Amino acid sequence: MATADYVSMKVFSLNCWGIRYLSKLCSQRYQMIGEMLCKEEHDIVLLQEVWSEKDYLYLKKKLSTSHSHSHYFKSGVIGSGLAIFSKHRIHDTFLYRYSLNGYPYMAHHGDWFGGKAVGMAVLNLGGLTANIYVTHLHAEYCREKDTYLAHRVVQAWELQQFIRHTSAGADVVILGGDLNMHPQDLGSRLLRSYTGLRDAYLETAKFDGCENGITLIADNPFISKKELVPFEKGIRIDYILFKGTSKTDVDCDFMSTTKGSVPDQPFPYSDHEALTAQLQLKASVPAQAGSDQQSKPPAGKLAELVDIVTEARTEVKVGLHCAERMRYTAARTGAMGLALLFLELAIAAVPCFALGAEQPFPRTSFYLLAALCFAILLSTSLLYIFYTMELKSLQGAEDQMRLAVGGLQEKLRGFPLARPHDAPRGPPEGDKPNALDPEE
Amino acid sequence: MATADYVSMKVFSLNCWGIRYLSKLCSQRYQMIGEMLCKEEHDIVLLQEVWSEKDYLYLKKKLSTSHSHSHYFKSGVIGSGLAIFSKHRIHDTFLYRYSLNGYPYMAHHGDWFGGKAVGMAVLNLGGLTANIYVTHLHAEYCREKDTYLAHRVVQAWELQQFIRHTSAGADVVILGGDLNMHPQDLGSRLLRSYTGLRDAYLETAKFDGCENGITLIADNPFISKKELVPFEKGIRIDYILFKGTSKTDVDCDFMSTTKGSVPDQPFPYSDHEALTAQLQLKASVPAQAGSDQQSKPPAGKLAELVDIVTEARTEVKVGLHCAERMRYTAARTGAMGLALLFLELAIAAVPCFALGAEQPFPRTSFYLLAALCFAILLSTSLLYIFYTMELKSLQGAEDQMRLAVGGLQEKLRGFPLARPHDAPRGPPEGDKPNALDPEE
Repeated sequence: MATADYVSMKVFSLNCWGIRYLSKLCSQRYQMIGEMLCKEEHDIVLLQEVWSEKDYLYLKKKLSTSHSHSHYFKSGVIGSGLAIFSKHRIHDTFLYRYSLNGYPYMAHHGDWFGGKAVGMAVLNLGGLTANIYVTHLHAEYCREKDTYLAHRVVQAWELQQFIRHTSAGADVVILGGDLNMHPQDLGSRLLRSYTGLRDAYLETAKFDGCENGITLIADNPFISKKELVPFEKGIRIDYILFKGTSKTDVDCDFMSTTKGSVPDQPFPYSDHEALTAQLQLKASVPAQAGSDQQSKPPAGKLAELVDIVTEARTEVKVGLHCAERMRYTAARTGAMGLALLFLELAIAAVPCFALGAEQPFPRTSFYLLAALCFAILLSTSLLYIFYTMELKSLQGAEDQMRLAVGGLQEKLRGFPLARPHDAPRGPPEGDKPNALDPEE
Repeated sequence: MATADYVSMKVFSLNCWGIRYLSKLCSQRYQMIGEMLCKEEHDIVLLQEVWSEKDYLYLKKKLSTSHSHSHYFKSGVIGSGLAIFSKHRIHDTFLYRYSLNGYPYMAHHGDWFGGKAVGMAVLNLGGLTANIYVTHLHAEYCREKDTYLAHRVVQAWELQQFIRHTSAGADVVILGGDLNMHPQDLGSRLLRSYTGLRDAYLETAKFDGCENGITLIADNPFISKKELVPFEKGIRIDYILFKGTSKTDVDCDFMSTTKGSVPDQPFPYSDHEALTAQLQLKASVPAQAGSDQQSKPPAGKLAELVDIVTEARTEVKVGLHCAERMRYTAARTGAMGLALLFLELAIAAVPCFALGAEQPFPRTSFYLLAALCFAILLSTSLLYIFYTMELKSLQGAEDQMRLAVGGLQEKLRGFPLARPHDAPRGPPEGDKPNALDPEE
């Protein structure tokens, strides 16, 4: 809906949990999702975990009248699971595949096969250029011992880089998706503070939904309560984030989430709750000072950003250390496999030189051992290559972070000292629009 | 060098052919390159095929006074081989890894292990924001039967997407690198016409270098002349491309290439020739009409672009067909391996049921056959996964191209019919700044 003064838009985001044959009541839930989307007529629908293209095509057909424009992002072996449906024409799309995304041998977690990525679509909304992003980061399977933390931090780093660098020409930026990070987690803070994206849940004038905006809730019948421990009620890991520019102001008038059940339906849409945000886009007041303030963040925010990037760098270094150890283990195991193979061949070769001597090796054992050696050599070689690639990506991210910290510190040095409204360090209190404080 | 009116900058690009222990005279050549770069003092140095980080660190040390800022982009198993050296501070960097880049089992070609990518660095030049890109696309090993054509076209597609979407905030855009494409090749045309990047060789006021600007020349002692057939003298596959914006005009005053040998040196810097372009950046005339013209390309150019993207889409479809066939072959071979394994087990199991019957299988053959079956199963499974990922990337690129053609055609329909200066189809003649004609 657009008037001369403002453009109003409704954005929807849902992790559909659409693993065919594994997710419960998959086709029934897609039917429900399709019907609801047809009725609700959101301007933009951002879906994650639409793992099967058939399900995307089902939705595309179902929404052909309400959302005549759509795009499905393809990546990895089965993914990326990301889809955009829109009432407005999609002019352009672009996909960035994260350089790190778990391990192929962790097949039961499956993230690697999904080829996690961030998809971008460029739309025109009432004369404004809107860059719409949809993403899904690597899941957190164990919060106490999170083996994927470095990967997720690098994904958050690449996500903020991608959004910052591709959104310079946009009037409004919207990101929706399952970040698999709590609001106070390092990756969330990094993303929000570097891009300036604002959290619709924190910004909304009115809210109707689960307590604390949680989107993975204990009351959802598809959720195992054990998985949520120690967060009894649930966690907030799905988001709609947005920002305007010096030319456009964006506000969130209303936000809602589903609450674990759907009225008149026997079960919810997914194991995640659905998010809806009503945004209002206005031409911003053409005050020179205001636009200047937007392009140059205050010293306090810069100092905070330096701290967050430094924290991220530390986490990546821990990941680097771990990947180096894994690669070393793969190399050592491979070397042992090779040594065993040589030893076996040497023992088998003895009777050839000592003519007449009996073959000391029982044939069965000989072949089994040889097969084992080959299997070890092959798998450790593949692992060595994989860990080397992981190391390169981690080192690359760390290099970029180091350079970014240098650049930010240079900017900080350019600031006049002790401006009264700029806190020199630490999160500013009560600074809600860009608040970095944990709110849960 | 900057005056009040303009900023002048010297850009250098070279494929260093830096494969340790394989490339001839590698360390001596790096020494020569380092000395030359120290002396010449280019503003920006874009290097490709710096495969070893040690060589990058050697150059970094050597150029510490002349080029105090640098970045090495890490990707893949040994790559990406891309490095930037700059006299000006690098504020930010970003790397985009191409989704397709050859096959890991084509180890003798090695491109897959290099993790080909496009690196971006953001600089500030006399108050102007410059986005500098360096890239290296998949090599073309056989022009008649180019099995990597679809991969290279997708790389060119992703390269233009990356540059278009990340350069909206820049005042000047510069791309240097080894594109492994002739100027009239599909990928080159796609890149130049979609981004509006201008070829320094075609644009320069003065040129000193090889005939036709060729950069892989028969006279280079490291080149095997057989590889260049049917291009006797050589080919042009290395480029410096640039563009300004509505705010900035960029011109190329002078361009030069090395000519297969270096004065007072026994051998050249590399198997590729080095490129140097002297660019001049000026604030553009603040004519409203002019800036409008820049943001809205004429109908003739749009129609041409539609043709080029359609051509690229056809090429990607050919690649898709090929990848589907390869995946089918992998699946069929895997199924045969599995059938053979079951057959073997069935024959071996017969004596267990028919008690007293003799084992018909000689043990050696039994174990060898079983090992062979396992090897077939494992390798075809890995290949199946790889080809599925290749298919997803090709399908994704094709989807994006289809959507882009739709968007371009929509724009075309918005044009008033038959403006006298807009050719409806085909490359405009004599339109040098954005010429799409083959010039070789």
